[in-house]
Parts: sequence; structure tokens; C-alpha cells
Amino acid sequence: MHAEDTGGRRAVTLPCMSSSGTAPAYRRLSVQERRSQLLGHALGLFAHRPPEDVSLDDVAASAGVSRPLVYRYFPGGKQQLYEAALRSAADQLEQCFAEPPTGPLTTRLARALDRYLGFVDEHDAGFMALLQGGSVVETSRTDAMVDEVRRDAADQILAHLAADGDGGDRGSPRLRMAVRTWISAVEAASLIWLDEGKQPPLPELRDWLVDHFVAVLTATAAGDAGTAAATRRALALEESDGPVADLVGRVLPVVAESGHLLPGPTGPSAT
Amino acid sequence: MHAEDTGGRRAVTLPCMSSSGTAPAYRRLSVQERRSQLLGHALGLFAHRPPEDVSLDDVAASAGVSRPLVYRYFPGGKQQLYEAALRSAADQLEQCFAEPPTGPLTTRLARALDRYLGFVDEHDAGFMALLQGGSVVETSRTDAMVDEVRRDAADQILAHLAADGDGGDRGSPRLRMAVRTWISAVEAASLIWLDEGKQPPLPELRDWLVDHFVAVLTATAAGDAGTAAATRRALALEESDGPVADLVGRVLPVVAESGHLLPGPTGPSAT
Repeated sequence: MHAEDTGGRRAVTLPCMSSSGTAPAYRRLSVQERRSQLLGHALGLFAHRPPEDVSLDDVAASAGVSRPLVYRYFPGGKQQLYEAALRSAADQLEQCFAEPPTGPLTTRLARALDRYLGFVDEHDAGFMALLQGGSVVETSRTDAMVDEVRRDAADQILAHLAADGDGGDRGSPRLRMAVRTWISAVEAASLIWLDEGKQPPLPELRDWLVDHFVAVLTATAAGDAGTAAATRRALALEESDGPVADLVGRVLPVVAESGHLLPGPTGPSAT
Repeated sequence: MHAEDTGGRRAVTLPCMSSSGTAPAYRRLSVQERRSQLLGHALGLFAHRPPEDVSLDDVAASAGVSRPLVYRYFPGGKQQLYEAALRSAADQLEQCFAEPPTGPLTTRLARALDRYLGFVDEHDAGFMALLQGGSVVETSRTDAMVDEVRRDAADQILAHLAADGDGGDRGSPRLRMAVRTWISAVEAASLIWLDEGKQPPLPELRDWLVDHFVAVLTATAAGDAGTAAATRRALALEESDGPVADLVGRVLPVVAESGHLLPGPTGPSAT
């Protein structure tokens, strides 16, 4: 009998063979399942409280198991559990930016942002604690995981901006900088959004971040041939009743009085 | 005689009265001067090496004094010295964004960015260590100082965007978010710039960040009345041979083929 300490609770156990095959063992969950279960509970706790305020006892209580059991799976204690929970969160965040390479870029971006901002909404306190720094569980390893998420998101967006069949191309240095700074802006906006009691509503924040992307891409295209080519390809896919057309329609009244900034006497050709 | 241990070096001492007036004392520097001198040396060392790699011995050697003297001024050891050096760096960074409220906004912004990026260039390793996190000397206090610099920079830019006599106005929530996310983008761009061996040259990075600001401001204006008013005021001050006119001239060829995204059959009026 390989029964786990369940903190005094009686649990139904399912028979299974131990992997070594030397003796029959009874376990409620496989090692992997138990580990995932504990991680899930840890992530749930870290999501809504700063890591300082989460103890191994809390994780044990949440999972309905004993503290020693948590230690058996995470002998490194809270730091190990936190890093494992963060690893699992990082994997989820990286999935947010996975999107089929079809349709207008703004539609793909809006879907990715919906997932990303949904994650931020669901893991509010943990997201803030992680990104605002100064946490007791922050290490070069946790920072590396955060940075990996940022780089992965940038790579995925750059892949969407690349020309078809342009597999290895990750954009000009300026385009990469534009995408990476936009990701920082998304992160900063998420923190401000949490700090301001989740205002404005998520769809508004998402639409603004899409506008923000289009604006930065276009301004970067103005000074960089690689970005200009990517921007032309992206704009060609946009629909005449889509978000970019909508943005253009809303920008024009703002700049209407600024004719002095237009080249030549006639202004832009509207094709 | 209140002679300082100078690590074996003979030093010329200047006579002065001790502040208590009970006995004459000889000090090379006043307490404040000595403190500033040590801080200057510390900042110089922290600027080009991660804090992990700077010891109090290094600071003592750089200043030509003994380790005990450094401890006398900074009894909290390296952590206290680091925080004091950071405080001094934060004060310098906040000065970067102080700019008279006259002339085109892009000119003011370019001057502020020249100072900020000059600071980044001069304190490269320290800037990276500070902002990339995971440092052994990082605490909630150091994070608070970094955040204070960001907020101060945002406040100064918002003051430039406010209407004349609009003293207390710090912009609509969306305008504040736009400015704060742009500051995050500047920080991210600075880190990428350092990471990529300080490419492109600083003036190019500065001009791109100004374009980036104009683009984000305009896109934000498209959906927010407060930002639209601030943008119209800012655009009115821009010159017909200035950076915004130049940006417009460079953007038009990029979007020239995207007539399908313009409203109506005739495109924008050019006034």
C-alpha cells in the first residue's frame, strides 16, 4: 500500500501496479497526475495572491493533501512550486499567441490578445507580482521564463508578418524592435489595467492595443524597407469594413486641421 | 584630528571646524561631499557592471579610500550604497524629461529622449541589470524607485500635452495609458538597443521613438476625445518641415496602395 497522506481525509484509492513492478501499490493518482493536480492548485493560489502570501500549507489545503505530500513532489519547497507553476503559466501564455496564419492580421492579433488579456484577468494578482518585481520568489530563472514568453510572442507575431514561404525570416531589426516594444506596451497596459480596477472593459483595451500595433507598425514602416514590405502585405489583407479602415476613419477627423503637415499642395492621393 | 583612513595613501587635508564646535577637526571633505564622492564612484561602477560584480572594496579602491570608510558612510553595506546610487540615478533620469513648454512637442520630446538615451548609453550595464530583474540587490524599494521614474516621466509628458492653464489636468485615462505604455516601449527599446550592441545609432533610435509617440498618440486620439483634443493642440504646433510632416511624407507611400481602407470614394480631404 502506497497510500498518500491525505491530511486526515479518507479517500477512495484505485489499484495500480507500481512502475518498478516489485509490489502492488495503491495510488489515487499517478505521479504525473498528482504533480499536475498540485500545480493546478498552486497556480490558482498564486494567481490571486502575491507569492509572499501563499504558503505550502495553503497549497496542501487547497488540494486536500498533507504538507509532506506537497514536499514529496516539490522537495525544493515554495520556490520550486512557484517556478513550476510559472512554467505552466508561461506555457499557457505562449499558447495565447498561437494563431492560424489566415485572414486579416488585426483579426489574428485580436484573438491572441483576447486570450492573453483573459489570462491576465484570470491571474491578476500573480501577473502583477510577477511583472512588478521585488518578489521574494523572483530569481534569474523566473525572469528568464518571463523573458521567454515575451520573445516567443514576438517570434509568433513576426512569423505572421513574414512573407509566405519566408520560413526563416524574423523581420528586419527595426521590425523586430517594433514588435518587441509593442509587447512591452501590452504588458504595461495590462498592469495599468489591473491597477485601475480592470478599466476600460477588456474588448476596449484589446481594440486599443490592436490600433496601437497598426500605428507603430505603420510609423516604423515609414523609415524601414523591411517593415514597409510587411506592412503593405498586412494592409492588403485588411477588409474595407475591418478595424484598420475603422481606425483610418476615426483618425482623419483628428488630423483634418493639420493640412500644413501634408506634403505638396494637394495632399495624399486616395488611389 | 578626524583623519580618514585613505587606504595607505597620504592625502592633503584641509582644516575645518567640526559641526559640533567642540574641537577642531581636519577633514579632506565635508560629510556631504564625501558621501557624494563615494556615491559618484559607486554609480560609476554600478553603471558598467551588474551589482553582483561590484564589491565595497571596488568602491573604496575607485574612490581611493578604505573599506571601513565606505562602511562608515554606508553602514548598510552594498545594499545601502546601491540604493543610494540608484536614488541619485533616478534623480538624474527624472531631470531628463524636464523641458520648457515651448515649441513643437516633437522637439521637446527629442531633447528629452537625447538626455534619457544618453544616460542609458553611459550607464549601460547598470541600466540592464536594474531593469532586467533578478538582481541580488533588487528589493521592493529599488523597484519603487524605478516605478517613480516612469511615473514622473509620464507626468511630465502629460503636462506638455495639457492645455495652457490646465495645471491640474493629467489627461484622460486613455491618454495616460498611452503615455505610460510609450514609456515602457522606450525602456524596452533601450534594453534591446543595449542588447544589440547599441544599434542603430542613438539619433536614429530617438527619431523612431518620436515617430512611435506620434503614432500612438494619433491612434489613441482616434478613440478618445481627451486625447484627440491634446493631439490637435500638439499637431497645430508642429512645423511643416518638422518631424511629423516628415513622418507623414514617409507614411503615405506605405499606405498608398491601401485605398480600400479609406472612407468614401474620394479619400481624406487635405484641407
